[in-house]
Amino acid sequence: MEGKEEDVRLGANKFREHQPIGTAAQVQDKDYQEPPPAPLFDPSELASWSFWRAGIAEFIATFLFLYITVLTVMGVVKSPTKCGTVGIQGIAWAFGGMIFALVYCTAGISGGHINPAVTFGLFLARKLSLTRALYYIVMQCLGAIAGAGVVRGFEGGTTYKLNGGGANTIAHGYTKGSGLGAEIIGTFVLVYTVFSATDAKRSARDSHVPILAPLPIGFAVFLVHLATIPITGTGINPARSLGAAIIYNKDHAWDDHWVFWVGPFIGAALAALYHTVVIRAIPFKNK
Amino acid sequence: MEGKEEDVRLGANKFREHQPIGTAAQVQDKDYQEPPPAPLFDPSELASWSFWRAGIAEFIATFLFLYITVLTVMGVVKSPTKCGTVGIQGIAWAFGGMIFALVYCTAGISGGHINPAVTFGLFLARKLSLTRALYYIVMQCLGAIAGAGVVRGFEGGTTYKLNGGGANTIAHGYTKGSGLGAEIIGTFVLVYTVFSATDAKRSARDSHVPILAPLPIGFAVFLVHLATIPITGTGINPARSLGAAIIYNKDHAWDDHWVFWVGPFIGAALAALYHTVVIRAIPFKNK
Amino acid sequence: MEGKEEDVRLGANKFREHQPIGTAAQVQDKDYQEPPPAPLFDPSELASWSFWRAGIAEFIATFLFLYITVLTVMGVVKSPTKCGTVGIQGIAWAFGGMIFALVYCTAGISGGHINPAVTFGLFLARKLSLTRALYYIVMQCLGAIAGAGVVRGFEGGTTYKLNGGGANTIAHGYTKGSGLGAEIIGTFVLVYTVFSATDAKRSARDSHVPILAPLPIGFAVFLVHLATIPITGTGINPARSLGAAIIYNKDHAWDDHWVFWVGPFIGAALAALYHTVVIRAIPFKNK
Amino acid sequence: MEGKEEDVRLGANKFREHQPIGTAAQVQDKDYQEPPPAPLFDPSELASWSFWRAGIAEFIATFLFLYITVLTVMGVVKSPTKCGTVGIQGIAWAFGGMIFALVYCTAGISGGHINPAVTFGLFLARKLSLTRALYYIVMQCLGAIAGAGVVRGFEGGTTYKLNGGGANTIAHGYTKGSGLGAEIIGTFVLVYTVFSATDAKRSARDSHVPILAPLPIGFAVFLVHLATIPITGTGINPARSLGAAIIYNKDHAWDDHWVFWVGPFIGAALAALYHTVVIRAIPFKNK
Repeated sequence: MEGKEEDVRLGANKFREHQPIGTAAQVQDKDYQEPPPAPLFDPSELASWSFWRAGIAEFIATFLFLYITVLTVMGVVKSPTKCGTVGIQGIAWAFGGMIFALVYCTAGISGGHINPAVTFGLFLARKLSLTRALYYIVMQCLGAIAGAGVVRGFEGGTTYKLNGGGANTIAHGYTKGSGLGAEIIGTFVLVYTVFSATDAKRSARDSHVPILAPLPIGFAVFLVHLATIPITGTGINPARSLGAAIIYNKDHAWDDHWVFWVGPFIGAALAALYHTVVIRAIPFKNK
Repeated sequence: MEGKEEDVRLGANKFREHQPIGTAAQVQDKDYQEPPPAPLFDPSELASWSFWRAGIAEFIATFLFLYITVLTVMGVVKSPTKCGTVGIQGIAWAFGGMIFALVYCTAGISGGHINPAVTFGLFLARKLSLTRALYYIVMQCLGAIAGAGVVRGFEGGTTYKLNGGGANTIAHGYTKGSGLGAEIIGTFVLVYTVFSATDAKRSARDSHVPILAPLPIGFAVFLVHLATIPITGTGINPARSLGAAIIYNKDHAWDDHWVFWVGPFIGAALAALYHTVVIRAIPFKNK
Repeated sequence: MEGKEEDVRLGANKFREHQPIGTAAQVQDKDYQEPPPAPLFDPSELASWSFWRAGIAEFIATFLFLYITVLTVMGVVKSPTKCGTVGIQGIAWAFGGMIFALVYCTAGISGGHINPAVTFGLFLARKLSLTRALYYIVMQCLGAIAGAGVVRGFEGGTTYKLNGGGANTIAHGYTKGSGLGAEIIGTFVLVYTVFSATDAKRSARDSHVPILAPLPIGFAVFLVHLATIPITGTGINPARSLGAAIIYNKDHAWDDHWVFWVGPFIGAALAALYHTVVIRAIPFKNK
Repeated sequence: MEGKEEDVRLGANKFREHQPIGTAAQVQDKDYQEPPPAPLFDPSELASWSFWRAGIAEFIATFLFLYITVLTVMGVVKSPTKCGTVGIQGIAWAFGGMIFALVYCTAGISGGHINPAVTFGLFLARKLSLTRALYYIVMQCLGAIAGAGVVRGFEGGTTYKLNGGGANTIAHGYTKGSGLGAEIIGTFVLVYTVFSATDAKRSARDSHVPILAPLPIGFAVFLVHLATIPITGTGINPARSLGAAIIYNKDHAWDDHWVFWVGPFIGAALAALYHTVVIRAIPFKNK
């Protein structure tokens, strides 16, 4: 099917006049080239300051993420009446808004992952080396632990433990299967948005699109929180779940903890698969 | 009236110095050409992967749209006190925010409709073929049913049915006429924004405008929900209404169901008419 | 003081390296020319479709503005408990969000005023002719009356009147002076944002800035509502106040009504003065 | 280590294909040059209108900032039930939204600081002269006092004092150390965002990025308020704290007042240090 392969290479350009909404400017074919997959291990990275700096930026960003969000959670949870607080909606804004601001700030330094599930999804799509992926995930987890730890320091251990410490657990009335499903679909929403917003093909067609990428990514996090706070408290970020669990450190949080690693990693893998196979159709573009 | 036709062809450019606000950059006349109307049936489309991919993207997007929004609705409705939830405003954010994120993600793939009323309005303006329009609408409805079904699976059938299942009905105290009117004007707001944001003339004048298109489109959905949730629960999207109705499947939802197809389609047609006749004045530009 | 005049002509460019935040890209001096003031009366306008179309667009936009916002107000006000509604904050979002979406949609057609105070301020700065200004204000008021009328039709006259009809009055506990002051400063915030966002000089320096103009303008309206709903219900738009007052039509709304014309017009005049004299220093740039 | 210095000079460009998310377009090396540090005292500034105008713009912006935000605070605090107000979340939107709108409006005039901590941080990074920094801080404080004063005038002295006057104090249940820590980290979030958004290197790589700068800066302020209103009421802006304290003028506000100068200045200094040493690695780029 020669014609079909041609079409895949051209992407949406062939029938572009039928796709009028949104960012699909696609006016002229720009010089787009599929970037080569990142190597699993790239020793030259380790000699560069930009590599180490990227990990530090991930640490600081995840630290600030947990600090602001868990502090917001504590302010809401410990109040007897939710109306005198920023409310559950305020918690969703804290998570989504921080991701927006932090992705904006760190995108040029580390790529702005701030989330092991994002790092994992991008690694599966071979956008970064295994070395870099593991380094990022370690730094994200350390930053998350530090951020939750500072909140516990401010609130005091007793208050922190009495109010759940912002840890993720599956709410009464939901099965573990539902909780796992909520984490899988929620992370799919996030990582699907990340792939869509940062598609190199899209950038080549319209160089202005990546500017806005942090906004829909932050909104995706906000929206998943609106929907699944009543189910799991919303993880979709294993570093966030781990940091809160370690500082909270109670059995019922640890019992469900695997859900907040397995769910996000499956969701990220599905998003990578969907983007690669359906949207980009990379497997069918055999030379 | 030669002068008037001239003016229509020039659009707002002639008196541009009197129109200083906002995006009307209009500094230089760019190479703008009215795109030809899409054919009713375009057989070459069917041989392209980008056509089938577009429908899959519409399916996935409408699935995620219903999943996140109906889950948010359930979390609010089933709580005895609304203060411990994201509230009615949070529901409005879920609907508007998802449209923002999903239009952003799918605009380059399918045009980002995610709504049969949008597809219908753009079809009336001859922006896509009849084949494509019907294919999109079928995929949107299937995605919506799947999305609402997953929510029912998570919540359990009893809880889902007790709490209305996110289905659209006309609230006590409003006539069917008011409900229909609310759907017509609400969909007009949405489709008018879609036309304004994606006007090819506008893109030609200022190539950066389409970047932002998903944001006002998402806001339009958010705003209509703020206003009409107390009247109809806000449909303005027949796929969303159908998906929730099929999974909820109670008589009182089906009784009003026609309102959520007729209303949005009339609203979309009025928006297409307004854009074509008043804003673009296409009927008067006869050669 | 030759040097000072030079500096005024150069604007902020001379010391640009000291002003690092935000949109002041100012990298190269672009071809900026002060546009000539609009004539008071421009007969050629009246023969163009773009002139009449602009008024229709202002009518439709103000109609939709009042429809969505007053309907949102009614939904909140008539509920016995505010927690089951979008809340006062939702009302503020409705006003600000609609201005964002409508300015985005109509900026290229009419300039996107949707508010007699904005039209008045831009007229004082000679950005549009007197003919156009009067035409816009009449169309805005007619649109506002129609929008509030539809809401009354949906809600029923009794419910509408019992719940204040979205009309602006000065709240118990505030003097007329405070109400007038709140309208003056509130309109100043809005019209100051309009001038800043649409400054022709700014556009010349960085052609991308006007893209974002609708967003801060919408936010300005949102923010003024957050602050002054408890004082006056927030007018800062005489067409909005007039439309609601005519449909509501009770004495206590008419008693305060002058405040919602005098206040916004004074605020708009002050913003025009501030922009012209301080920011642009136009009076000192005598040749 | 010749290679490492090379890498630092190239920044993230060397391994750019591994950093796919967000705004890091970085497609071509543009003509980037480190701007020279601003002199401590620049006498030529004092002869220019743009210098004096910048201070006036800072005064007006801080005046409007305090007016809108403290008025919003008063509306929420004096209501017996928070559900009938815009709520604590509405207060957070008022602070963050005003910073967004005002930075947008004044960025091209004064750089859009509106906050002595931001001015201090940028001064430490030698982005403006000492003369200009002191002039800005004085104008910001005067504007803040005037803004809070108008709110007191509208509300009446008794109501204003009974309801805390929007002044910052450390809440019952938190130590002074926690309050100071919250101010330090909160200001770090804000000033870190300011540095990231306005990095000259980033602007050189992608000239469109500064357009969006006001949005993440405003969000940073919003987010810190979500988290720390329960602890300190959230200062992170000494002018805002000083203006409210002077107009409120009660002992318990003055007792904690030093926290709202020392905390923000330490946070701003840490952000300047982090940006200069880690992100830009300027100390290691010795020629």
